[in-house]
Amino acid sequence: MSNTRPAEVRVAQAAGGDAKAPRTERGRRTLRKLLDAAAEEFGEKGFHEASVSSITRRAGVALGSFYTYFDSKDALFRALVADMSEKVRTSARSALHDGMGALEIERAALAAFLRFAAEHKEIYRIIDEAEFVDPTSYRQHYETIAARIADRLTAGARAGEFRDGLGELEAWALMGMNVFVGLRYVVWGGADMTADDVAAGVNRLLAEGVLRR
Amino acid sequence: MSNTRPAEVRVAQAAGGDAKAPRTERGRRTLRKLLDAAAEEFGEKGFHEASVSSITRRAGVALGSFYTYFDSKDALFRALVADMSEKVRTSARSALHDGMGALEIERAALAAFLRFAAEHKEIYRIIDEAEFVDPTSYRQHYETIAARIADRLTAGARAGEFRDGLGELEAWALMGMNVFVGLRYVVWGGADMTADDVAAGVNRLLAEGVLRR
Repeated sequence: MSNTRPAEVRVAQAAGGDAKAPRTERGRRTLRKLLDAAAEEFGEKGFHEASVSSITRRAGVALGSFYTYFDSKDALFRALVADMSEKVRTSARSALHDGMGALEIERAALAAFLRFAAEHKEIYRIIDEAEFVDPTSYRQHYETIAARIADRLTAGARAGEFRDGLGELEAWALMGMNVFVGLRYVVWGGADMTADDVAAGVNRLLAEGVLRR
Repeated sequence: MSNTRPAEVRVAQAAGGDAKAPRTERGRRTLRKLLDAAAEEFGEKGFHEASVSSITRRAGVALGSFYTYFDSKDALFRALVADMSEKVRTSARSALHDGMGALEIERAALAAFLRFAAEHKEIYRIIDEAEFVDPTSYRQHYETIAARIADRLTAGARAGEFRDGLGELEAWALMGMNVFVGLRYVVWGGADMTADDVAAGVNRLLAEGVLRR
């Protein structure tokens, strides 16, 4: 995937077609402020208690500007879920560099996700609430991530590092591991393990499983 | 854990202290009907749209009887989450028998969970909604399951089948795998994989990981 698209195109695409694309840099910043304020508001209050007026107040944006970009609170929520998916993607990608092995990529991607979640704990509440508020976005979020993981697993097998036959099932299993250790060690916390500790432990499990050799 | 407690004690314990314990067999049946009707109602409508009167109607139980056992819709919801946790436990246990190896136990427990979830797809919605309606129950549900898995992992290591050093982290990872493959292959479905296929694939991943040997 190319990262060379202009920033405003990326923001609009991340907003999943639910935001009208801003045509100026100023518009792009306004949309970004609205999405960030929405993450705070939905994360703190949940969808039903959140209000558009409170979100525009947090964002320091006029109510009229809100409706330039979104038709409704629902449209903003959908755009936010797509934006969160995009942020998960870019946070994982930013931890990767050329020459990494397939197993190392999984470790680095998980550590980056855990660090992202530590900075944005509201992501769990927002994605989980999407199951009820917007099931299509919820499903799309996980299907997109699972497809990306499945691609990495088959690439790892092609490179000779992973065994053959890994696919969708293993991708869903791996995603479930990552999501649940994030819930336990980042969102709930209190276990005194760093993102790197957690990622290393999960990575060993992924590499070699549980059997004694 | 002993399974020799009388049925009424088990129902009341499963209800997590939020149901008043029935003293008669008839009372026990009424409580069971209320919990089953609650699973349907909360599963179909979600917590906020669900109503006590609709639940008693589904259960064929008088409204007065409801208040013999529960103080409120909230108390019933909490009792239902505890009851679901207990059912997950007993469904997994029922698939196990003496002489199974540690890895085989994980496979059989997952296959049993997937079959249970196929019969009770509402469990995902109910547990997931607990994150918002009753966070304490939500957390307790997963902490209890993770503790049970961690015990099985250490027992497997003690028996020489699993490697040493497995614990809470690996238990959360394993639980995450199981929950997510259940979401994908049971709740969403459409992939034409049986519970046994899914459990076998996850079990191989758990056993040996992804590295090529």
